[in-house]
Amino acid sequence: MPSPTASPSLTIRGTGSYLPRTRLTSAQVDAMRGWAPGRCRARYGIDARHVAGAEETTSFMAVEAARRALDMAGWTPSDLDLILGACGVMEQPIPSTAVLVADRLGLGGSGVAAYDVNATCLSFVQALDLAALKLAAGEARRVLVFSSDIASAGLDWDRPEAAAIFGDGAAAAVLEAGEGAILARGFETYAEGHGACVLAAGGTRVNPARGIAAGEDRFRMDGAQAFRVASRYMPAFLARLLARGGLDRGAIDCVLPHQASAQALRHAGRALRLGRDRIVDIFAQTGNQIAASIPTVLDHAVRTGRLRRGQTALLMGTSAGISLGGAVLRF
Amino acid sequence: MPSPTASPSLTIRGTGSYLPRTRLTSAQVDAMRGWAPGRCRARYGIDARHVAGAEETTSFMAVEAARRALDMAGWTPSDLDLILGACGVMEQPIPSTAVLVADRLGLGGSGVAAYDVNATCLSFVQALDLAALKLAAGEARRVLVFSSDIASAGLDWDRPEAAAIFGDGAAAAVLEAGEGAILARGFETYAEGHGACVLAAGGTRVNPARGIAAGEDRFRMDGAQAFRVASRYMPAFLARLLARGGLDRGAIDCVLPHQASAQALRHAGRALRLGRDRIVDIFAQTGNQIAASIPTVLDHAVRTGRLRRGQTALLMGTSAGISLGGAVLRF
Repeated sequence: MPSPTASPSLTIRGTGSYLPRTRLTSAQVDAMRGWAPGRCRARYGIDARHVAGAEETTSFMAVEAARRALDMAGWTPSDLDLILGACGVMEQPIPSTAVLVADRLGLGGSGVAAYDVNATCLSFVQALDLAALKLAAGEARRVLVFSSDIASAGLDWDRPEAAAIFGDGAAAAVLEAGEGAILARGFETYAEGHGACVLAAGGTRVNPARGIAAGEDRFRMDGAQAFRVASRYMPAFLARLLARGGLDRGAIDCVLPHQASAQALRHAGRALRLGRDRIVDIFAQTGNQIAASIPTVLDHAVRTGRLRRGQTALLMGTSAGISLGGAVLRF
Repeated sequence: MPSPTASPSLTIRGTGSYLPRTRLTSAQVDAMRGWAPGRCRARYGIDARHVAGAEETTSFMAVEAARRALDMAGWTPSDLDLILGACGVMEQPIPSTAVLVADRLGLGGSGVAAYDVNATCLSFVQALDLAALKLAAGEARRVLVFSSDIASAGLDWDRPEAAAIFGDGAAAAVLEAGEGAILARGFETYAEGHGACVLAAGGTRVNPARGIAAGEDRFRMDGAQAFRVASRYMPAFLARLLARGGLDRGAIDCVLPHQASAQALRHAGRALRLGRDRIVDIFAQTGNQIAASIPTVLDHAVRTGRLRRGQTALLMGTSAGISLGGAVLRF
């Protein structure tokens, strides 16, 4: 990847997140699976995750998160001129999730552009980058980016290592140009790992018309392969990312990682050679929320004061692909 | 939408397309449906469409198209540093289609960034815009954009008005900075029309785990509503698009419209007040190929000499959303 020439102006005016009403504790998982009490917590490092109800659709949750972000900014939906959906899995194939969110926000007759970006768990980071480019080019002035995911729709509890660690939720940010900036960004895909994390059913290859074999409608993860590919490339990726922005590790006030797993969060700390106090970790309370993880942890950091104006945050993570991605923001 | 401030440099070095081996003629449709000979052709304005076989997956077709585009440019896959998938419906929800294409191109260990943009039938236009922004920002030097769609996986032949007009296929373009440019671009979404064109099954809301009601796995189109929303906004949209680039209709050498339907193509001509000779129309031989339509008609125009270096082309169309989109390119 060539070195970008500019630091695009990008100011996050508001953030918001939404957790489904139903909370599934690891004690409940132990009971459900017939495990010894405490096993789920001890094995996967998670206390609880939230599970979306039937009315808590992807677009419903996205709009709840978006309204909280708009409130923080003091904006209304009519202030927006671009809506970017950045989910791991869309609500439905046609039309895109951003369209459904635009309609729920009362923008159905507005003409506000709405479409989706999909980089699985890193969709939010790619959409932030796209928003910054659109702002810089004068193609948009005020942008909503949201990520909303319902992992529970595709989990296979007979493979608890790929089921126990996921949770549902949504988060959003509203953006404009201004004093904030993306100081560095990077994204690398190692498609040799494309089989490590797969949801096969729901597209053109595996679907009801063509037949769905047992298990193809459930998320399949070879955690060992995913971790192997990601950890092989992560240290050098992070070094390149920081070098691109002329940044030292010490300049990072706050790391907002994808909450992939307890193991992945420990690895991020080691790869960055930064103390755990710098890394915002909410995994035990939310699980891995696919694309919603990074903006949820961003919202958490903003609302708890862990990320303050003028500080520097590193958003980073891995996604199915396997892709590695990151963005350093001056908040 | 604010007016963009710049004309990003974007040169299309190569184009390519792929049509599945099986061709389904309208005479065969007449026989299949028990219609009088000639009815399908007379009613829908289509002679034939292509239908993907089991081995002609979304990513397989995309790679066939990509190799043709790379050949035209004299590039190899290793020249690329960004791969943007721009399909209407992805091959599978996780990971994104661009990742599968990267792997098939032999780039599995390369780190070349690969992800998807989804604006249904206008995905290619949005991905071109994103590519231009990435090139301008120095985030990429040589980009592959592909669109590949298998409409036949979701058609309901009991509703022939939404089945007879679709076809499968893929097309691609390879891009870099240079003498070409995007002179103007625009995208507007009227989400009030989100129910006009729907494929419900395959995402988080309607899926095997939660149950799929009859028909939810098939594409549903209220053609009258889609046409009403699109035609209400299209003339003013096109006027704004051309004004944004300081362009007169007469400056357009060649219109490359989404091949939505015979009716939509006639309407595009009227909305632009341009003669049919300026509008490239391959609908009768391909049908509506969802996102693959616009790059397929681009490849057709380039290979037949209807679009030559230095000329100006208008890519335009409507998509499920309802969205209207367009880009004026100096080729």
